[in-house]
Amino acid sequence: MDNLGLIGMASIVTAGLTITIGSIAPALGEGKALAQALTAIAQQPDQAKDITRTLFVGMALVESTAIYCFVITLILIFANPFWAYFVEKAAG
Amino acid sequence: MDNLGLIGMASIVTAGLTITIGSIAPALGEGKALAQALTAIAQQPDQAKDITRTLFVGMALVESTAIYCFVITLILIFANPFWAYFVEKAAG
Amino acid sequence: MDNLGLIGMASIVTAGLTITIGSIAPALGEGKALAQALTAIAQQPDQAKDITRTLFVGMALVESTAIYCFVITLILIFANPFWAYFVEKAAG
Amino acid sequence: MDNLGLIGMASIVTAGLTITIGSIAPALGEGKALAQALTAIAQQPDQAKDITRTLFVGMALVESTAIYCFVITLILIFANPFWAYFVEKAAG
Amino acid sequence: MDNLGLIGMASIVTAGLTITIGSIAPALGEGKALAQALTAIAQQPDQAKDITRTLFVGMALVESTAIYCFVITLILIFANPFWAYFVEKAAG
Repeated sequence: MDNLGLIGMASIVTAGLTITIGSIAPALGEGKALAQALTAIAQQPDQAKDITRTLFVGMALVESTAIYCFVITLILIFANPFWAYFVEKAAG
Repeated sequence: MDNLGLIGMASIVTAGLTITIGSIAPALGEGKALAQALTAIAQQPDQAKDITRTLFVGMALVESTAIYCFVITLILIFANPFWAYFVEKAAG
Repeated sequence: MDNLGLIGMASIVTAGLTITIGSIAPALGEGKALAQALTAIAQQPDQAKDITRTLFVGMALVESTAIYCFVITLILIFANPFWAYFVEKAAG
Repeated sequence: MDNLGLIGMASIVTAGLTITIGSIAPALGEGKALAQALTAIAQQPDQAKDITRTLFVGMALVESTAIYCFVITLILIFANPFWAYFVEKAAG
Repeated sequence: MDNLGLIGMASIVTAGLTITIGSIAPALGEGKALAQALTAIAQQPDQAKDITRTLFVGMALVESTAIYCFVITLILIFANPFWAYFVEKAAG
């Protein structure tokens, strides 16, 4: 097991863990907000428009934390500078 | 056990764990929101249309975190650049 | 224990764990939503049609996360590119 | 312990764990829904027909996650491609 | 495994963990605030404008902690001075 194998293995495992654990909290947070929004609509039907608009803008903000993890995962897989360095060194 | 076996094993295990753990939170969050939606319909039947529309758009957002994990899993299995590199190196 | 045995063992264990752990959260989430639906029907019998329709569409969305895990499990068993590579290499 | 023994052992243990752990959550979820159904019938006897119909269709959906685990277990025991490969190799 | 491999591996793993764990709390906190805001709108519809404005400014502040983690992750991957030092030393 040399540097190349080590870096590759660490990248694969870290990429998987990043998107996995990083998507737990947004999913739970969005589920909670969504459940509350439905209760709010049932309680105050006249404000359904305001509530849904606030909900979706807010969920987009929560979703952004999941997107950060997704971006880092894709960087670790497809644009990993550490991997690129060792590949280049191994090639020449 | 050389680099090729190590990278392959890490990819398989990480792929499985990614989709497995990554689908726990969306399933729980969606289940919670769905349960709340049914309560809301029972409480305010006149708003059933608004409630279901909000529910399904919101669930699609929550589902997106599971889809991120699914995409990463498929990339790790079928388009893994680390595996591709070692296969190419082993081939010649 | 060579690469072939290692990859095979990792595939078997990961396949089992993927569908096993991946089916816990959908089952719990669907069970919760189903229990709530029955309460909602008992509370508002006139909306039974709306409630059941929302319930089944929502459960299909929750079920989709279990299906993701099932697909990955079948891929790991029957269309595993890592296993295919080592078998091909061992064959010649 | 060669590859054949290793693969066989991993298959047996994984098959057992898959159906075992995979049947915990569906059983709990269905039990919860069933308990709620009985309360709902007691509360609204006129809707007993609607409630039981919704219950059984919903339980079939929850049951499907247990069936996924059952199918994977049977595949691991009777149609295990990894085991088939090593048996064939050992035979000739 | 020399210094270069060690630094590279530590950077990859730390980068993944940083954005992952760092995004759990903001997502949960924002989800909680969003849920409360929707309850508040339902309770006091005349103040919907004030409530949403306060919510979004507040969520931007909570989001900032996730952005800090994102920035550090990007620095660890693309502008890591420890890595730069060892690369320079290895080069000449």
